[in-house]
Formats: sequence, structure tokens, C-alpha cells
Amino acid sequence: MSQRHFASPDDVEAAFYDAIERGHLDEVMSVWAEDEDIVCIHPPGNRLLGYRAVRESWRAILAGTPGLRIVASQIIRWQSGMIAVHQVSEALHLGNDPQIHGPLNATNVYVMGAGGWRLVSHHSSAAGEAPAADLEISRRQLH
Amino acid sequence: MSQRHFASPDDVEAAFYDAIERGHLDEVMSVWAEDEDIVCIHPPGNRLLGYRAVRESWRAILAGTPGLRIVASQIIRWQSGMIAVHQVSEALHLGNDPQIHGPLNATNVYVMGAGGWRLVSHHSSAAGEAPAADLEISRRQLH
Repeated sequence: MSQRHFASPDDVEAAFYDAIERGHLDEVMSVWAEDEDIVCIHPPGNRLLGYRAVRESWRAILAGTPGLRIVASQIIRWQSGMIAVHQVSEALHLGNDPQIHGPLNATNVYVMGAGGWRLVSHHSSAAGEAPAADLEISRRQLH
Repeated sequence: MSQRHFASPDDVEAAFYDAIERGHLDEVMSVWAEDEDIVCIHPPGNRLLGYRAVRESWRAILAGTPGLRIVASQIIRWQSGMIAVHQVSEALHLGNDPQIHGPLNATNVYVMGAGGWRLVSHHSSAAGEAPAADLEISRRQLH
């Protein structure tokens, strides 16, 4: 798709979550810097590096989670020069499921380049009271 | 303790992990901005806001995890103006336990203020990627 121009980190952030809600992979990826030095960490925790790996993860998420809508609330933001960092809370809505899932905590990093602002790092992890024991169980199941 | 001055984000990062290794709470906290707008997210995921909450979490971690040493490897870094962001991998060493725990993925955010660079956000979460092979190598080297 044609290159989009985002005038602010907020514009990128809004476009990111909007594209997820519409399940549109190309639009989700249009908010990212087309770079090898981008990072995406989804729960349960893999660090994905580079545009191709990040794209594949979102392809799988969108394909496997129809009706996914993420409502993001900004908690704290920092901005200076060509970098902005937003701490957000993400509430997950899944189709018609009335239950709200998550929340996730996310740290989003935006960088301004020649084409405007882009997302370069999205680190999300499950928030909440899950005791360490549960995490250990989850990790064992992954191996 | 007296106010420390950090000339670079790397200096803050080194002091942070060094203070953890020495189990020195005041030094751990000396790398943080003394601010209500700081964020710390440890596994299993609670978001802690503000100096007091962040301090209490580190007090509990240091008290409950004697011999904790975190070896951090930088993966990617961004810096512009008065903000720097480092993506790091954290390998956890616990006292004489030869097993390396984690790794964790962490996004560290540094801001330069009147007193030099300080940590304002530390988001860590368990890495789900199977580090088993690497860990096995590490264990073999230790034995």
C-alpha cells in the first residue's frame, strides 16, 4: 500500500490500534518503520526482530483472532527530539465476547524519520496478579 | 545517598544492573528519576507507577532474592534529544545456582534531566522463546 505519513506519535498509535480492529495486516504494518531494527514482543514473550518477523506475527494474530479489538489507554508518555515513548494499557475485546481480556501493559516506542513518525518497538505483556508459579507453568508448556 | 550524575544512558544502565548485583537498594533507586511519572513492570506484570512503588518493589526483590545478578545484553538502542531507549535481554543468575534463569526481555527508557540521565521506565517480561539450547550450553560450560 502507499506510504502513509503520520504527523505525530499519537497518529501512529491511533492508526495501529485502528488497523488491528479492522484486521487489516497491510495497515497494521504501515505504522511500523520498514527496518531490521524494529522489535515486537507479544505475550507470551518472544522478541521478534525485523520487519518480516513482526509482519508474520501480526498475520498470525489477525488470522487467529477474528474480531480482535484493542482499546489502548495512555498512562505516561515521554517525547524529545525524534523519539517518543508511550506507556499504555491494552484492554482486549474478542468479537462478541462480552468479557474484556487482558489487560496488557505495553511500551510503545516511536521514531520520526524522513517519512514521519513510525512505530519501532512494541513490548506488551500480561498485566495482573498472575503469580510467578503460573508464569513458570506457562513457560514450561511452551518448551 | 548523595545525588549521582550519569553522563550517558549506558552509564545509568551499567549502574542499575551493578547495584542490583550488589543488592544495594539505595543505589538501585539512585538510577531512577525521582518522579511520580516513572514506570516499572516486573514479571509477572504489575505496572508500578511512581518512585515509592518502584522502590518498594526493588526492596522486596533484593530482600527475597539474595545473590541476584542480572547480565544484560543490549539488542537494539534508539537515542534522540533527551530520550534513549534500550532493548535488552536479561539473564538471571541466583547466587551459586549454576542454572541461568530467564531470560527476560526488557525495554529500558532513559531521560536526561537537570541531574543527568536517569531511568524512567523499565518494562521486563519473561521471554517465551525457547532458550533451552542456549541454556544447556551455558550449563555445560558451568559444570
